[in-house]
Amino acid sequence: MVKERHRETFETALSQGKVDEQMQPLCIFITGAKKYFTSSCCSGRIMLLEKRGESRKENLFHRKWHREVDEKEIIEGMEENVEGDLWFKLDPFILHIGCETARDANAALDAMRKAGVKRGGILVAQEGKWLIEMQGTQSMSFPIRLGGKQLADREYVRSILGKANSMLEKNYTMLARLEGEMRKALGEAK
Amino acid sequence: MVKERHRETFETALSQGKVDEQMQPLCIFITGAKKYFTSSCCSGRIMLLEKRGESRKENLFHRKWHREVDEKEIIEGMEENVEGDLWFKLDPFILHIGCETARDANAALDAMRKAGVKRGGILVAQEGKWLIEMQGTQSMSFPIRLGGKQLADREYVRSILGKANSMLEKNYTMLARLEGEMRKALGEAK
Repeated sequence: MVKERHRETFETALSQGKVDEQMQPLCIFITGAKKYFTSSCCSGRIMLLEKRGESRKENLFHRKWHREVDEKEIIEGMEENVEGDLWFKLDPFILHIGCETARDANAALDAMRKAGVKRGGILVAQEGKWLIEMQGTQSMSFPIRLGGKQLADREYVRSILGKANSMLEKNYTMLARLEGEMRKALGEAK
Repeated sequence: MVKERHRETFETALSQGKVDEQMQPLCIFITGAKKYFTSSCCSGRIMLLEKRGESRKENLFHRKWHREVDEKEIIEGMEENVEGDLWFKLDPFILHIGCETARDANAALDAMRKAGVKRGGILVAQEGKWLIEMQGTQSMSFPIRLGGKQLADREYVRSILGKANSMLEKNYTMLARLEGEMRKALGEAK
């Protein structure tokens, strides 16, 4: 029942283009695997995040890219006026996988470890309801503008962009490796 | 047996001053609780991290503070010569708790959620061996020097230091709240 509901939600998101391209093959595979479902996933991204307050609900995606970013794009985005604070962020991939038993959960975690993904664990461990999170580790996060004042200048953001792009590439390589291990491990469970 | 071994390791670390001051009360409490032990903990910190290569083993703490940092300290640290890349990092608290049963693991996770700590889960879920991770969310991370080139200048680092300090404070407040909820929930299990 739960799996069916998540499958429908996923297929709607997919048809609306809401699933990142790099994440699609893995999410489609998991959704097709008999014992598993995905409830949330992001392939990793570079973004300009506007923070209008303390809670996550007050965050706005000022710009967001699930791919390498060029100088022109980032400078353009960071120099536009925003109401709140503005942060540069590189977020790694994140994937939530649900299943029914401890055995299935551990099989997924084993595949994760084999892929070399070090960040992940079980969020919910209840009879019949297990939820796993897997995450990459590539990240960067710093303020560009705070309290209406521009702090990071063009030159600094330009100088770290190459590093951010190469870290995002590494993140996608790790995601591809995770997909490979998940296909090997969960394929038999189809 | 496992608990006993971890208790000894913890007490050695404590006597050598290796457990951060803000983390001590919570770790001492957990070590004293009958059904739980801690295997690793950090209260959160601001640091200058030197990266000499890709793996975590090649990282060196160039400077590390488990408290607010003043301008003079951070500027002094960032302008010293280092061999590798240099990153500014604000890391949230992290805590690993072990126990024997799913029931005990879920009790600890419930206390975590009550405290408002959103990042955490079960790392190991095996018969008789459960390991939980709990983490804060306050973080910042950016390169100061890459490939021998200074990228972030004094002015930028100075301008974001107040924000980093206030985020670290918020991190410690959250840690104190976690301690309160853990005492309430696990106290009975003593």
